[in-house]
Amino acid sequence: MDVRSYMQRVGQDARSASRLIAKSDTRTKNHALTLMAQALRRDTDQLLTANARDLEQARAKGLESAMLDRLSLSAKSIAAMAEGLLQVAALPDPIGEVIGLHYRPSGIRVGRMRVPLGVIGIIYESRPNVTADAAGLCLKAGNAAILRGGSEAIHSNQAIAACVLEGLTAAGLPKAAIQVIETTDRAAVGELITMQDYVDVIIPRGGKGLIERISAESRIPVIKHLDGVCHVFIDDDADIEKAVRIADNAKTQRYGTCNTMETLLVAKNIAPKVLPLLCRIYREKGVELRGDGAAQSLVPEMLKANAEDWVTEYLAPILSIRVVDGLDHAIEHITTYGSQHTDSIVTENQTTAWRFLREVDSSSVMVNASTRLADGFEYGLGAEIGISTDEIHARGPVGLEGLTSLKFVVLGDRHVRE
Amino acid sequence: MDVRSYMQRVGQDARSASRLIAKSDTRTKNHALTLMAQALRRDTDQLLTANARDLEQARAKGLESAMLDRLSLSAKSIAAMAEGLLQVAALPDPIGEVIGLHYRPSGIRVGRMRVPLGVIGIIYESRPNVTADAAGLCLKAGNAAILRGGSEAIHSNQAIAACVLEGLTAAGLPKAAIQVIETTDRAAVGELITMQDYVDVIIPRGGKGLIERISAESRIPVIKHLDGVCHVFIDDDADIEKAVRIADNAKTQRYGTCNTMETLLVAKNIAPKVLPLLCRIYREKGVELRGDGAAQSLVPEMLKANAEDWVTEYLAPILSIRVVDGLDHAIEHITTYGSQHTDSIVTENQTTAWRFLREVDSSSVMVNASTRLADGFEYGLGAEIGISTDEIHARGPVGLEGLTSLKFVVLGDRHVRE
Repeated sequence: MDVRSYMQRVGQDARSASRLIAKSDTRTKNHALTLMAQALRRDTDQLLTANARDLEQARAKGLESAMLDRLSLSAKSIAAMAEGLLQVAALPDPIGEVIGLHYRPSGIRVGRMRVPLGVIGIIYESRPNVTADAAGLCLKAGNAAILRGGSEAIHSNQAIAACVLEGLTAAGLPKAAIQVIETTDRAAVGELITMQDYVDVIIPRGGKGLIERISAESRIPVIKHLDGVCHVFIDDDADIEKAVRIADNAKTQRYGTCNTMETLLVAKNIAPKVLPLLCRIYREKGVELRGDGAAQSLVPEMLKANAEDWVTEYLAPILSIRVVDGLDHAIEHITTYGSQHTDSIVTENQTTAWRFLREVDSSSVMVNASTRLADGFEYGLGAEIGISTDEIHARGPVGLEGLTSLKFVVLGDRHVRE
Repeated sequence: MDVRSYMQRVGQDARSASRLIAKSDTRTKNHALTLMAQALRRDTDQLLTANARDLEQARAKGLESAMLDRLSLSAKSIAAMAEGLLQVAALPDPIGEVIGLHYRPSGIRVGRMRVPLGVIGIIYESRPNVTADAAGLCLKAGNAAILRGGSEAIHSNQAIAACVLEGLTAAGLPKAAIQVIETTDRAAVGELITMQDYVDVIIPRGGKGLIERISAESRIPVIKHLDGVCHVFIDDDADIEKAVRIADNAKTQRYGTCNTMETLLVAKNIAPKVLPLLCRIYREKGVELRGDGAAQSLVPEMLKANAEDWVTEYLAPILSIRVVDGLDHAIEHITTYGSQHTDSIVTENQTTAWRFLREVDSSSVMVNASTRLADGFEYGLGAEIGISTDEIHARGPVGLEGLTSLKFVVLGDRHVRE
């Protein structure tokens, strides 16, 4: 297969399809999503068979168990994929919404209309459910999508792609609206991220290495986050019961997710009251603790944290802890070492809370809430295609709205520039 | 001068200053803008002297008169710069605004807060007024800015920079909040567009060549438009008097601007009624007409348009004209040859109007209005730093809001992920 010409054709077809999807009505898009969900449920056995092939090859290659875990489908996870598509169908259609239409002194009315981005390229690893999730969100937001899953999941992804395709065609939508790349040749990724004429935005999902490589080489805007070095800051004015509850949950509710707290900051006056309590809980749950000198003096069995710890996303039962002077010191630490993902303050003080919200430059900032709540579903976006920590376009969890933009609409009645 | 280390220092200083500007209050920012305006007015004579040096050198180099025109300052244009800064001071502060804060079923409140982008790099040619305009908009939106003007305007830009600096320091803001590059070495641009750690977005303003080069080489997101190949489509259901008025204004109100109409599309049934009328006006104003066969048969003295005409931004008294079958054909033409800048339909038909608004994928789409109205002031943005025809982030005229983004804010009260 000539990968270059294959990808060029995929890109051209996606561009053509995007024009039709952009003007498709809500009913048609929802119908396609519903049919896709039905096909996934009906084909559960075939999907499991295809997935078993991927798993067998992955085991033969000696892939580690966490990877096998992400690759695995079950009847339950297939039902969840189908349910996810139905949930996206139930969301309001963002496309065509006009906001802020108002009269200007000249007499024209100016507003903005929400429109699709165009063609979205998504590059992801292992988890086959991304194929259905991304297809659903892109379609509902009026975009065409080119999906490039990991080679280890090729059979699972192609089986899901067949269900997606069935839904598209039965609803009368162009099949190139969602294309799942059929080749495992890595050159396809290089082509995808340099087809500026055919692709409007790239969303990479996977390990930091993959995302860094794609960001460095892409000639197309990338929506991404690299790291989730999330902080909870327990302020001197914190309620201790809330602080313990939130800092416990932020670390231990799940270890491997990007919104898990990796560094705990505690103000120095409250530290003697809250740290021993919290550290008992962490130790009981088997969390390894690494603290600065002040933290160690309060909880002696803590290991010594080094500079590397403050910038590390452990994705594991390890927590770094630092005692800080107060709000300014905490913000300075987060600014210096954080990854602009999600940071939370625990405080009862209104002024402190709002200074933290304004001055911490992260995609999600929270008061008295666990960083684990940074999530498209929790925020009411319906679903998320990823999280962005970049400055421009979308920040935080990216749902339907993040897959759209706003153009200006002007309504006149013989209006000209004087 | 070692340009690399100079630019690195500029970048570091800008990043530090951006953190202070981001949290500056509205009063302080407005005070700085007012002081800058006062300094510009007071120093009018010095500014004119500096500008005379630039003009003298430009004439000695044999720069063409359009370029000299753009380079020239006058007492009037300096007063307009000062007035522009005062207008920006009078605009509402976008920073810190919280939108959509609402309760989720879990009990958390989720909303979004408008925040600065960070550090903005602006690269522009000739017009010295961009120095003051860009400084004002960036500052008000809470950003630090690095401004790189053309070497031909170096003395004018440095004189304006002195006024900007005076305003910043007198208001107690860091002087690195707005830095005007002091070297004319072209290597400074190469450094600016690759300092990912210090610069968050690049805005190039100038000729297409400059913008293409910067887009190709930048490692930082670019907000830009390349071309303004704008269309007016006169639908069969147009009011002829409105069509003539709008198509005349869109072409002849000013020839050299990016929102000037370059191609007129006319539906075939109305063409015999409207084209002869319109072409008489164009000829009286000295506009050269280039039409397809059908247009030529209605207005015989028209030149023959070739394929190149449909994609050309003339920026001159030249107009290409095509007779189309109707709405679908017009949209197809705009999609194929347009530049996604500004396109307008003249029609009395509601259904046709809204199909055009939805299906034409341009940054501004209009009904019964001249494309010349695509402008930050006309839209009520207060001012504009440029126009974007890209898909992500801002589209259309970019004002204060386009220099910001939205982060998520979450207000809880002991809320955790279950």
